[in-house]
Amino acid sequence: MEKGTLYLIPVVLAEGAESKSLTPYLINTLNSINEYIVENEKTARKCLKNAGLTTPQSSLIIHDYSKHNRNVSTSTYLKGLEAGNNLGFMSEAGCPGVADPGADIVAEAHRRNIKVVPLVGPSSILLALMASGFNGQSFAFYGYLPIDKADRDRKIKDLELTSEKLGQTQIFIETPFRNNPFLDTVLKACKPDTRLCIAANITADDEFIKSKSIADWRKEIPDLHKKPAIFLLYRNR
Amino acid sequence: MEKGTLYLIPVVLAEGAESKSLTPYLINTLNSINEYIVENEKTARKCLKNAGLTTPQSSLIIHDYSKHNRNVSTSTYLKGLEAGNNLGFMSEAGCPGVADPGADIVAEAHRRNIKVVPLVGPSSILLALMASGFNGQSFAFYGYLPIDKADRDRKIKDLELTSEKLGQTQIFIETPFRNNPFLDTVLKACKPDTRLCIAANITADDEFIKSKSIADWRKEIPDLHKKPAIFLLYRNR
Repeated sequence: MEKGTLYLIPVVLAEGAESKSLTPYLINTLNSINEYIVENEKTARKCLKNAGLTTPQSSLIIHDYSKHNRNVSTSTYLKGLEAGNNLGFMSEAGCPGVADPGADIVAEAHRRNIKVVPLVGPSSILLALMASGFNGQSFAFYGYLPIDKADRDRKIKDLELTSEKLGQTQIFIETPFRNNPFLDTVLKACKPDTRLCIAANITADDEFIKSKSIADWRKEIPDLHKKPAIFLLYRNR
Repeated sequence: MEKGTLYLIPVVLAEGAESKSLTPYLINTLNSINEYIVENEKTARKCLKNAGLTTPQSSLIIHDYSKHNRNVSTSTYLKGLEAGNNLGFMSEAGCPGVADPGADIVAEAHRRNIKVVPLVGPSSILLALMASGFNGQSFAFYGYLPIDKADRDRKIKDLELTSEKLGQTQIFIETPFRNNPFLDTVLKACKPDTRLCIAANITADDEFIKSKSIADWRKEIPDLHKKPAIFLLYRNR
């Protein structure tokens, strides 16, 4: 029997951003699948509905891949695929497996020789990089920086140095409710002529994306409290 | 007078992949803009038509940002924006400014306090990363590796070491007609248990994405000649 295909399905980054984020092919794929692996069943069902799912929700099989379930073997989720069913994999926002858990499920699919098909959709990392005007031919994403203040400070200075040495754009994120103190740390740690791009609420109506020097940011500090944001540092060689 | 907005417009990666790649919002945006900066006028016009442009092509203002024009100051292209016209910026494939020239135009827009809006669309880097099953919480993209054989060999070994040290996915590309000898070099340079993902013809009907160990790839080497491809290395800590 032929195995099913694992579709990696991006999810909107902002409420109401479906038309900005989803392709017709993605919506058709949703309507052709009845089994999903998701991070949170409730929000995933809402997402599917908003995306344009016409299949009755009661006919869906949903595997909740939430934090407390992660000690379940990934192979549990792949039984349907082995039996020939196509399966959709979604995270809470953006692209599954990128700045999000789930890469282990994809890795397991490759080990089992299951076809993996990534669908086009919104990634805050990619959109911020495009819009930063920084080097898009060499860049690195680090996820969250260390929480300890001294470690974090050292890490930011490290990234600034790496950017200067390699001409590489440095990308990182913070938990939205810690954005303001985090930005403060970045503005204090970096050199005045280093460039910083702040991208917040990407694809929302109040999307904010600006690149300025650290010196210019220090003059006018934006309020990022509770706004999903991404930070990019760049220092020209 | 209010300045225009600079829209960053992704372009399909494969012929006929519009429905997989473009959002309704992107197509509406195309039809609301009449001025573009592009890498190649002829292919850009074809792209716009295939995407669903309904504006007559004769009414478009197209600035050809091709190689021989790059010594023209970027500000030349931004006059329309300064005068209040919205402007679309496209590269030949994928996302403008990512693994492609054009970041300087976006940087100049930021310096002039022009609003920059990135649109969702296909990026071979992001799609390959999602589908690799490798670490998506820490990754780096390097573009092309050195051409000199000894330098390239050293660089690949370097990337393998960096991946192991940082748990970071290492991403790079090659010119399609050099893919086969390049893959040969990668397979010889890396350790047998390092994992390599090869993603070729992304979003095309014959899309090929597979992650395997170097040892397994050595047993069955795919023909990548002239296929747009992206390579990802990963070594678990």
